[in-house]
Amino acid sequence: MSHYQKLVEHSLKISRFEHLGSICGWDQTAVMPSGGNEARSEAMAELSVHLHQLGNAPQLAEWFDKAESESLSDNEQASLREMKLKWQQSTALPEALVQAQSLAGSKCEHAWRTQRGENDWEGFSKNFAEVVALSQEEAQIRANISGLTPYDAMLDLYEPGTTTAKLDVVFNDVKTWLPTLIQNIQEKQSTESIYLPDGHYPTEQQRQLSVDVMKFLNFDFNHGRLDVSMHPFCGGVPTDVRITTRYDENDFVQSLMGTVHETGHARYEQGLPKEFAGLAVGQARSMGIHESQSLFFEMQLGRSAKFISQLSPLVQKNFVNADQKIFKTDNLQKIYTRVNPDFIRVDADEATYPAHVILRYEIERDLMNGKIGYKDIPELWDAKMQQYLGLTTKGNYKNGCMQDIHWTDGSFGYFPSYTLGAMYAAQFMAAIKQTVDVEKATLSGDLSLIFTWLSDNIWSKASLFSTDDLVKQATGDVLNASFFKAHLEKRYLG
Amino acid sequence: MSHYQKLVEHSLKISRFEHLGSICGWDQTAVMPSGGNEARSEAMAELSVHLHQLGNAPQLAEWFDKAESESLSDNEQASLREMKLKWQQSTALPEALVQAQSLAGSKCEHAWRTQRGENDWEGFSKNFAEVVALSQEEAQIRANISGLTPYDAMLDLYEPGTTTAKLDVVFNDVKTWLPTLIQNIQEKQSTESIYLPDGHYPTEQQRQLSVDVMKFLNFDFNHGRLDVSMHPFCGGVPTDVRITTRYDENDFVQSLMGTVHETGHARYEQGLPKEFAGLAVGQARSMGIHESQSLFFEMQLGRSAKFISQLSPLVQKNFVNADQKIFKTDNLQKIYTRVNPDFIRVDADEATYPAHVILRYEIERDLMNGKIGYKDIPELWDAKMQQYLGLTTKGNYKNGCMQDIHWTDGSFGYFPSYTLGAMYAAQFMAAIKQTVDVEKATLSGDLSLIFTWLSDNIWSKASLFSTDDLVKQATGDVLNASFFKAHLEKRYLG
Repeated sequence: MSHYQKLVEHSLKISRFEHLGSICGWDQTAVMPSGGNEARSEAMAELSVHLHQLGNAPQLAEWFDKAESESLSDNEQASLREMKLKWQQSTALPEALVQAQSLAGSKCEHAWRTQRGENDWEGFSKNFAEVVALSQEEAQIRANISGLTPYDAMLDLYEPGTTTAKLDVVFNDVKTWLPTLIQNIQEKQSTESIYLPDGHYPTEQQRQLSVDVMKFLNFDFNHGRLDVSMHPFCGGVPTDVRITTRYDENDFVQSLMGTVHETGHARYEQGLPKEFAGLAVGQARSMGIHESQSLFFEMQLGRSAKFISQLSPLVQKNFVNADQKIFKTDNLQKIYTRVNPDFIRVDADEATYPAHVILRYEIERDLMNGKIGYKDIPELWDAKMQQYLGLTTKGNYKNGCMQDIHWTDGSFGYFPSYTLGAMYAAQFMAAIKQTVDVEKATLSGDLSLIFTWLSDNIWSKASLFSTDDLVKQATGDVLNASFFKAHLEKRYLG
Repeated sequence: MSHYQKLVEHSLKISRFEHLGSICGWDQTAVMPSGGNEARSEAMAELSVHLHQLGNAPQLAEWFDKAESESLSDNEQASLREMKLKWQQSTALPEALVQAQSLAGSKCEHAWRTQRGENDWEGFSKNFAEVVALSQEEAQIRANISGLTPYDAMLDLYEPGTTTAKLDVVFNDVKTWLPTLIQNIQEKQSTESIYLPDGHYPTEQQRQLSVDVMKFLNFDFNHGRLDVSMHPFCGGVPTDVRITTRYDENDFVQSLMGTVHETGHARYEQGLPKEFAGLAVGQARSMGIHESQSLFFEMQLGRSAKFISQLSPLVQKNFVNADQKIFKTDNLQKIYTRVNPDFIRVDADEATYPAHVILRYEIERDLMNGKIGYKDIPELWDAKMQQYLGLTTKGNYKNGCMQDIHWTDGSFGYFPSYTLGAMYAAQFMAAIKQTVDVEKATLSGDLSLIFTWLSDNIWSKASLFSTDDLVKQATGDVLNASFFKAHLEKRYLG
């Protein structure tokens, strides 16, 4: 057996254990009774140890070495490249640091769950200081290995190939036009009349509506499920994708569009190439490309006027006893395109969302590169919120720098993926429109031409190419944020 | 660390992987979409290999050796004994035999799923011959190690300590009175008038009824769930017990009592001692004792007149739109104590069930001990069915010797557990009645005195004692089938 083949076998073995972890993780979040948590957490921790051992098996260094001089096809070379990147990233850190991070992250996140409600920055920052210090250590180690800056080395975990140099250009440009755009949209919308949900929308009917929409979006129920969890997510494995949502019986709006969003993630997973199942090269390209699919479904497709005209009868059908004027296409469209600067990122609309991300990006970049300390965060947060969205968070930690879970366990470098995703989604839609009449397809109720484009250009390509090459092959250009800007202008001011 | 402690740590590690397997196994049966099956099966097979490696780790022989001369408490000695038994059983067979059995069993079971419907004994026996030969080989190897007869060595896997010598005495006695008892019951019941379910019983209402009954039986929903599967089972882990049922919208009867049965299994699991969690000594004593708990719930408690009088209002409450005369205590009781000799074991009533088991016991005993061959089975089956239940299965393989899944993958030695369970259940009830007024407790709606007895005497004892000692401590006697006989006579002829 060639060394490349040995690496493949080893990767498949790892992926089978990851499969068990994915399903048990879904179970833990979506269906497990709370009394099962302690034993489950122990079982999951045991699995983590095992996966760590497999990922760091001593023979791998030699296998990678030898595999690189073996005769491999293009796809095999890509597969080897991705396996090696994953291996390098997972073996980069000393075990003691990984354990210290796990402990500090758990402690900080656990305490944060109550501290946030109590607006307790003082208490939070005691734990957070440790998390930041350990993440800075991690970033420095990864920087030493990769030759990147510390923050870029962290970015590489989520967005391989993306750098601060690229992001600064893109985000600085956004900052020049976004605040004005938001003001103009608000002005335009200020005279709109809108009917907000005010009825009772039973869970079972919301669930049926979600299923109807997922079917419209060609979600493959033979390879996936819809369930309920506190925080919606997309989990499971590509042959069995588990998405979740949550239902508020006073308001169907968020849940419905949340389902559209998660269905985008799910179809990417369901559409990954079977021939590379279980291998790094067969996985989603990056967090940003993953988010581009959920945001393509939610923002490019889901909140478009034509899509909402298809949604409207489904909503009416499922809530026959509720006030029907809320469900009219025109009103639903107003609901789903309402722009309103506010404190909370996860509740933000399409137009203000990038401001939340750029703010976080700038802070975590300077934090990882050692230009600021964690104590500087609240003041910077307040200043940037004022600058980008005209809101102050002075003294308001819980709706300011303590609102997100990401930093509590040291996931620095993740935030840019959200806005990269929005930008890629707009760029993909522009490319699709060159060959597909998207509005006509949407009105016909048959979206298959759109999905075929996504499958051919994104899903089936998995991690065969770098993000830049993937996007260039699909659209003729690397990341170009002008499509996103044009999209916002057309939808909100056009 | 002592060698005993090393064994404990190793067992806990194994049990954490088994935990993942239990949950993913539940998922596979209860919620997984069928398209997920191939990848799941691969993941489960990978886990099996890993568990096999852990269970056969080379250092264990030395650890067991040294642990036996360490100073251990009584509980620790019991724990060591159970760990060692499990280890000996799992290491007894050469790997090649285990693999051959796995292949032959899968092949035979898979083909059986269609061959049974086609009544194709000819086709079935081609695969079955191999399964039998391999099981005979297994039985001989286990016999050589344990000094038992081949069949007793197989029995030991499910009912440690139980032997053919004991079973022959008990079952031969049953055969002297059971056929007459069944005739007398049928005669008595022949003049009864009975209203059978003839309405529409929606799944959601049946589910609510199941939950109501589980609450009445003190099922701990903080440590378990009720779901749906084709074949009801009790799975999961003690801190998170997953039971399933299935709903027939034309008939609530089977599902309801099936839930009572699985709740008995579940409460045993939920009641196992926390201090021995993850260790062999902390597991259920045997298949027979497990079945004694489900049958205690279903037969001793569930089908008693007083319990049914409590069930009746719950049924009425959940099916307000259906014909109420069916739900009257008197009628429900007739439904749940109807005796009718028939071909199929899983559908058999309480009185005829032992005949099905004894028939299988006698055949598998002689088969494993080499006294008969697999070709003799159809004729023996027919003769014994005529003798015990007055029915012929000549040429009727699908409702005869091809009806059960057990033998298709070589699970010889399991069948006696069902009737041992029924006998233990009757013996436990007789013992409980010496200190608890069971009828009064049932009528009061508070069954806690009964459950306290079961918890104190059975659940909390796990595998600390041999089955004989457990039963003797609980009831003052080892297995005594006269309680079962007396129970049947009282319920059906009293």
